[in-house]
Formats: sequence, C-alpha cells, structure tokens
Amino acid sequence: MKRRSFSVTLNEAETQQLRLEARYGTASDFSPPFWNSTIDSLLNHRSIRSYLPKPLPQGTLELLVAAAQSAPTSSGLQAWSVVAVQDPQRKARLASYTGGNAHILAAPLFLVWLIDLTRLRAVARQHGNEGEGLDYLESFLIGTIDAALAAQNAVAAIDSLGLGSCYIGGIRNQPQNVARELQLPPETVAVFGLTVGYPDPNVITDVKPRLPQSSVLFHETFSGSAAEDLSAYDDIMKAFQTKQSLPKVGWTSSVAKRVENADALSGRAQLSGILREFGFPLK
Amino acid sequence: MKRRSFSVTLNEAETQQLRLEARYGTASDFSPPFWNSTIDSLLNHRSIRSYLPKPLPQGTLELLVAAAQSAPTSSGLQAWSVVAVQDPQRKARLASYTGGNAHILAAPLFLVWLIDLTRLRAVARQHGNEGEGLDYLESFLIGTIDAALAAQNAVAAIDSLGLGSCYIGGIRNQPQNVARELQLPPETVAVFGLTVGYPDPNVITDVKPRLPQSSVLFHETFSGSAAEDLSAYDDIMKAFQTKQSLPKVGWTSSVAKRVENADALSGRAQLSGILREFGFPLK
Repeated sequence: MKRRSFSVTLNEAETQQLRLEARYGTASDFSPPFWNSTIDSLLNHRSIRSYLPKPLPQGTLELLVAAAQSAPTSSGLQAWSVVAVQDPQRKARLASYTGGNAHILAAPLFLVWLIDLTRLRAVARQHGNEGEGLDYLESFLIGTIDAALAAQNAVAAIDSLGLGSCYIGGIRNQPQNVARELQLPPETVAVFGLTVGYPDPNVITDVKPRLPQSSVLFHETFSGSAAEDLSAYDDIMKAFQTKQSLPKVGWTSSVAKRVENADALSGRAQLSGILREFGFPLK
Repeated sequence: MKRRSFSVTLNEAETQQLRLEARYGTASDFSPPFWNSTIDSLLNHRSIRSYLPKPLPQGTLELLVAAAQSAPTSSGLQAWSVVAVQDPQRKARLASYTGGNAHILAAPLFLVWLIDLTRLRAVARQHGNEGEGLDYLESFLIGTIDAALAAQNAVAAIDSLGLGSCYIGGIRNQPQNVARELQLPPETVAVFGLTVGYPDPNVITDVKPRLPQSSVLFHETFSGSAAEDLSAYDDIMKAFQTKQSLPKVGWTSSVAKRVENADALSGRAQLSGILREFGFPLK
C-alpha cells in the first residue's frame, strides 16, 4: 500500500515536469505545489489544424457556449456574440477570406467570435439614452476582452474533452467580406475565428515552447526581457523546428518579419479605418 | 452493480443540470453530451472579492503563469507580460487608482496584465527593421487578445484549484499612475488586473446568471438578440439580486447607465489619447 502510493506520487511529479519541459523546451526551475486534470489539460494545449471528418455530438456547441458564457465579463456587459458556422459552402467562403486556412473547411464547426456593441446600444436607447460611452475605444476594448475571455473558456473545455481547436486571426484580414457573409449589423465585428473538431490522430502536433518565464513575469515593477533570455529562446525554437521538420528560423527573426511594416499585417493595417465604417468611432 | 452505475449517472446528470440552471437562472433546454471536472469548474465560476489572509504556496505564481503561457498566441508573438504585485503598500496604491477595490489589498497576489509591444519592437530592431507594423491598431489588438487568453487560462487554473480571482478593469481608470507605480516603459500598458487568493468561506458568492444562449449564439448568420429574451433576462437578474439582497435593478437599466456617456467610463474615455502618449499610435 505504502509503496504503491509512493510510486503514484513519483509518476505524477514526473508528468508535471514533462509538461513543463515541453512548454518551455527546457527543464523547469520550479516545482508546482498543486496539480490536477484541468491544469494538466491547460499545460498540454496545442493548436489543432487537422481534423477528422466526424460531426460533434448534439449539444456540444451549447456546452461550449455555456463554458464561454461562464467567463468573467466587464460590469456584466457581455459585449460579445458568436456565430456558429457549419455549412460547408459558408466555411469555404470564410476560409478564402482568411488567407486560406484549409482547416476551417475540415473542422465540423467554425465559431466566429464577435465584438457586439449593437445589443448594448439598443438597451441604452430602450432606457432613453444614446449609449455615448459605446463610442469610445474603451468600449471596443471591453468587447475584445469579453470575447477573448469567453472564447478561451471554450478552448479550455475543448481541450479537456480531447477535442481540438485553432484560433483564426485571419478573420480580420477582410472584415467587410466576413461581415457580408455573416450579415453583421453595424457595431459588430468578427474579432477572431475558432475551428473546432476531433483531432486527426495520424497528425502529431507537439506542444510549442513559450518564452522563459523570466521574459514575461516581473515582480513588483516591470524590468523587461533580457536579451540573453530571448536568444536562449531562439535556440529552443530552432531545436523545436528542427524536430518538427520545419524551417529553422527561430523566434526573433520570425517576429521581426511579422511586425516589419503595414504589408506584413495581411490587410489588417486597414482595420482602424474599417472599424470606423462599421460604427466603432474608437474615440 | 447495474443499479449503482445507474444511480451515479443520474447524479451526474442532476449536477450538470444544476450547474446550467445556476448559470442561466432557469432550467437548461439542452443535455450536455460530455462532462468532466474541468467543465464543471468552468461552469461553476464566480468572481471572488473576499479573501483569507493566507499566502499562496511557493510555486503557485509560476504555475499560474505556465498555464497562462500555454494559451494560444497570435503568430507566436506573445505580446503580453505580467507584473506580480505582493507588496502591501504597492497594492494599496494600485487599489486607490482603480476606484477603491478593497480586495486588491486583501488578496495575497495582484497580477497586472500588460499589453507589451516593447519586447517585439526591440526584437525587430535587432533584426534591422523598425517594426512599423506595431504602430497599427491591429498590433494593439493582438496584445489585448493575447493578454486576455493568457489571463483566462490562469483563471481556469485558479478555479480548478479552489482558489479565487477577480478581474479589475479599473486598472484602466488612471493608466499614468499605474504606469509610474509599475515603472512601465513606452509601448506597454496595464490592460486589466486580477486579484488571486483563497476565497473567504464565510462569504458566499453565487454563480451569476448570464444572457440566454439565444441572445449570444447565432447559427450561420447573425440574427440579433430578441427584445423578449433580454426582458426575460432582466427578470432573472432581478430575482438573483433579490436573493443576494442587492438593489433590484435588473440588467438592462444597469447596462444603460454603464454606457450612457463619457463620464460613466470612470476616466477611461481618455484612454485612446493616453495610449498614444504611451507609444501606441493605433494607426
């Protein structure tokens, strides 16, 4: 009895260290004081881009939305909505607007998350004011944050069920086409997409290493990322890319290319202008 | 054996329906095809504003940050950082800048989540470009979304451990004071705070009902929230507020007040101007 319980404890500690090592691409320098299946699932997250052609059981969408709605929301405003797209033709058109993410077609479910201020404007008017506060960048920000917290709860639920997902930021590449396709009214905009489905077990996806904690976590005051930490992370990403048979570009050169200029934003440099046309003054 | 397994199934289904009923303030009209401890914990979320004066075990912060870093990030940019504040004097000053959230003082840990483009700018320059893409609203949005996905993973981990948390949007009320306190450089800004600690078991916090799914979830195209659904939700919130001995204001009138005008934004109507001073041109 004693021996068995000792061996279980050892295995758990080993699993924890393996999860942390995969997440950072290097041995962890701390010991987690807690662990459970939720934490295990969160740490083990990877984006899934290959899906089985298998529909989701009835009620799955509603359960994911219940998880999403359970996320915190600023002042209870709930400044988001979501459109669930399952029609293959519509998925194909949406995929063509996002820079060709083929997994939007393969996934049985494509969720398009919206910043939605139109509901709040209607509620304000019903109570006799114009909802002028909605015209400020702050309200757009609340919609963005509310949508992101909600969507990430859905992702946590998806991972816990052995399903897979992948965010599609490319939904912001051609906002007008997306708005027309989804019949979006003014004061709503698609902020990101999310493919959902059963991961194809024949396509192995590894956990992608992240920046060392020393680069993102600061104590009491901000102290910035040390150049040597970013350089060490570059090496970790190169080793990961080599293992994945991907081009060995590392992290810093890929970041530099991704933020180099307006053209590198795949159409999204026009976003602030388009948002104003969509009825978000961003004051 | 058969009977026992039948009885366990019934109890699980009952728990599921109770969770959904608490979340929506009314009986659920769907049956979840799956359930597990993660989903149970997500559905059971509530914001915690009363904490025990008990420190978190060593390694808790690092575990929460590992969960946060495991969230997806746009193009791997990881455009966020977090400052962990534990010093009582600093927590008190930060509380005074957020409109007096006393639980910032009571919580052993206050996490201030930052949009951080300064690291990406440095990386771009190291590779010989100016990172002009960072000057666009799109990049600010990526920082916001990345920070929110990360923070919500931390919240999911916190809930799963029986700890509690509460987001503090008020950190955007006085951004200059927060920036000075945390010694934030240009191109970083505090986007929200998060109190973390052990919930005080003597303060009962109930799950707060959300909008009906019909108001936020649409199929194939957007169709908008029906006025009768919002009115029904108003009644649900009034019943909840009565049960909690809170002012029986409902939802719609509280929303209308919250978005009425610039003054209702508690200083955040100035945000877009302040962000430009902070080095976010939001082009």
